[in-house]
Amino acid sequence: MAAVTLEILKKDTRTRARLGKLHTPHGIVDTPVFMPVGTQATVKTMSPEELKEVGAEIILSNTYHLFLRPGHDLIARAGGLHKFMNWDRTILTDSGGFQVFSLGDLRKITEEGVEFRSHLDGSKQFLSPEKSMEVQMALGSDIVMAFDECTPYPAEYEYAKQSAERTTRWAKRCKHSMTTTDKQALFGIVQGGMFKDLRLQSAAEITALDLPGYGIGGLSVGEPKELMYEVLDYTIPVMPEDRPRYLMGVGSPDCLIEGVMRGIDMFDCVLPTRIARNGTAFTKYGKVVIRNADYADDFTPLDPSCECYTCKNYSRAYLRHLLKADEILGLRLMTIHNLHFLINLMAEIREAIQEDRLPEYRRSFFTYYGYEL
Amino acid sequence: MAAVTLEILKKDTRTRARLGKLHTPHGIVDTPVFMPVGTQATVKTMSPEELKEVGAEIILSNTYHLFLRPGHDLIARAGGLHKFMNWDRTILTDSGGFQVFSLGDLRKITEEGVEFRSHLDGSKQFLSPEKSMEVQMALGSDIVMAFDECTPYPAEYEYAKQSAERTTRWAKRCKHSMTTTDKQALFGIVQGGMFKDLRLQSAAEITALDLPGYGIGGLSVGEPKELMYEVLDYTIPVMPEDRPRYLMGVGSPDCLIEGVMRGIDMFDCVLPTRIARNGTAFTKYGKVVIRNADYADDFTPLDPSCECYTCKNYSRAYLRHLLKADEILGLRLMTIHNLHFLINLMAEIREAIQEDRLPEYRRSFFTYYGYEL
Repeated sequence: MAAVTLEILKKDTRTRARLGKLHTPHGIVDTPVFMPVGTQATVKTMSPEELKEVGAEIILSNTYHLFLRPGHDLIARAGGLHKFMNWDRTILTDSGGFQVFSLGDLRKITEEGVEFRSHLDGSKQFLSPEKSMEVQMALGSDIVMAFDECTPYPAEYEYAKQSAERTTRWAKRCKHSMTTTDKQALFGIVQGGMFKDLRLQSAAEITALDLPGYGIGGLSVGEPKELMYEVLDYTIPVMPEDRPRYLMGVGSPDCLIEGVMRGIDMFDCVLPTRIARNGTAFTKYGKVVIRNADYADDFTPLDPSCECYTCKNYSRAYLRHLLKADEILGLRLMTIHNLHFLINLMAEIREAIQEDRLPEYRRSFFTYYGYEL
Repeated sequence: MAAVTLEILKKDTRTRARLGKLHTPHGIVDTPVFMPVGTQATVKTMSPEELKEVGAEIILSNTYHLFLRPGHDLIARAGGLHKFMNWDRTILTDSGGFQVFSLGDLRKITEEGVEFRSHLDGSKQFLSPEKSMEVQMALGSDIVMAFDECTPYPAEYEYAKQSAERTTRWAKRCKHSMTTTDKQALFGIVQGGMFKDLRLQSAAEITALDLPGYGIGGLSVGEPKELMYEVLDYTIPVMPEDRPRYLMGVGSPDCLIEGVMRGIDMFDCVLPTRIARNGTAFTKYGKVVIRNADYADDFTPLDPSCECYTCKNYSRAYLRHLLKADEILGLRLMTIHNLHFLINLMAEIREAIQEDRLPEYRRSFFTYYGYEL
């Protein structure tokens, strides 16, 4: 049996949404789920206990960053990533592909893999399907992502086709070189740009590998949201019902709801933690930019209906003061709030699926939320 | 009765050390005590819960900083500093004097007070004994420090004399203008530079004001430690036994022990939190500079004998990684450790006083610790 399996508890009758439990070597994750991002073996500003307090059951960490610093060998000697960072719940690691492709002129892609220069010291480095598996096996994450080529947007048809086909060949090499399937689950990644036939071809090829789960990559890379929804609308129906589906790099509240309704089980994004440190909070009534002078004298919480530690104990005026004064506690409190907001949003979505009222929940959410982020 | 009183539980027979309980409007503080510094209404990187977990019973906050930002009026409207920052234990505020004198060319001292330019926006500002009391009354701290002139080191005799005499005149104005003695306790400050007759004169004048406690200022300002100990040796015997004595700005482990033995009850310093963020940890066996390459592969805790959250859950290798990667969690974990170290040191000192073995404790501590910080 695969190291990670999805137990589907309920399928929505009016949408493609599913309620499930993802069984992993480090615990059970309720799905649909949002995964906070812990790039460098820490979710920025947060302790593991705080992550648990906001309800995180799974986090994502980045192969590219850990490969370069402190190095996967060191983390293996430390007893693996879970022990190194003191997180005993589920971890998903990405493959490093997205980051090395983002390096632009600093990388060179061949069939073998990607040669690149480290953003830290300019040293020459190499990642390939085999190397990415080696790194992720050393990290010991529960879910390992295949090394893919993330097709940029916009892309020509021919480029997107070749890129998706290479992603398939690389996925086969990943599957072949991964030797820890009893403890770790390899997820394949569907590419194909914004072209329907390529997406369907990629989905067919990748799911033919019979992997424990699948990511949908190359979305939320600059295209209009409607286009992303369209891709999901035709791609998801050709993916197997019994495997988890992970929409990579997506995390705005509206996209989470829309993604779930189209059949997505897992999401990740740096958005909530990044905008938190920048001083922007999600609330049910839209976003609050806490540095605004309006909040200098506002002694109410960020979101009066919120049950998070930040909202229960601190005022907008105090948060604004901390951010203006460059105090780290401000970054922490904003991060706690935003992660709680998204994780709680997913809990509400799951409850709505359970109670057969997801479309109504969506309508009500958007009425208050009022706009996209 | 004064808002703050010292209950002396025991006096050491071989040194001037005392064991006590400081009764304040926000709880009882065991003395001798070390006070973490929360300059801008937050102890850098820490939450109030973490401060409690490391055993903090009292913190210090800075009048100068809060006066400029967010302003004492705002904090008063928030319900006072305790409520604003979510800290329900004791708070001591300094007077702002030390900070404005540190501004050098940016300030002008007259008998009336100090005119200075804000380090934030260059705006013209004014602090005086009356203004400092107004600010501290608005903040609502439990212990209010008199607005003094901190004599620099080295200083000419004549300058030190005039400065100490002005401090006395200002202390009288502070006492006169403070109208909240039922809720807040004003502590006077003894100055006098490194001159015995001036220290004795200042101590006599300040303690004649019959205030609920006294600070000793103008020490740890660059003079050799031996000189500081000498000043304490002749100053403390002329201060009243029944009032708390606070050695301002002192916080290295060796000075804490030496200060207690000379009769000090309270200390504060930014040292533990500042060097933590810089990557230096106190341990029983001396300091650990965590960025050193030696620790890259060291999977043991900072201090194996330490019971703090950091040492119970994280390795030196992980802490080094976090600091090298500029991750905020690293600053938090180092700060937790260093504050726990100093607060635990004070608990051990209190136990040693209780058990009549303070000189032996001192000897043993220095044997392992090995050097000064």
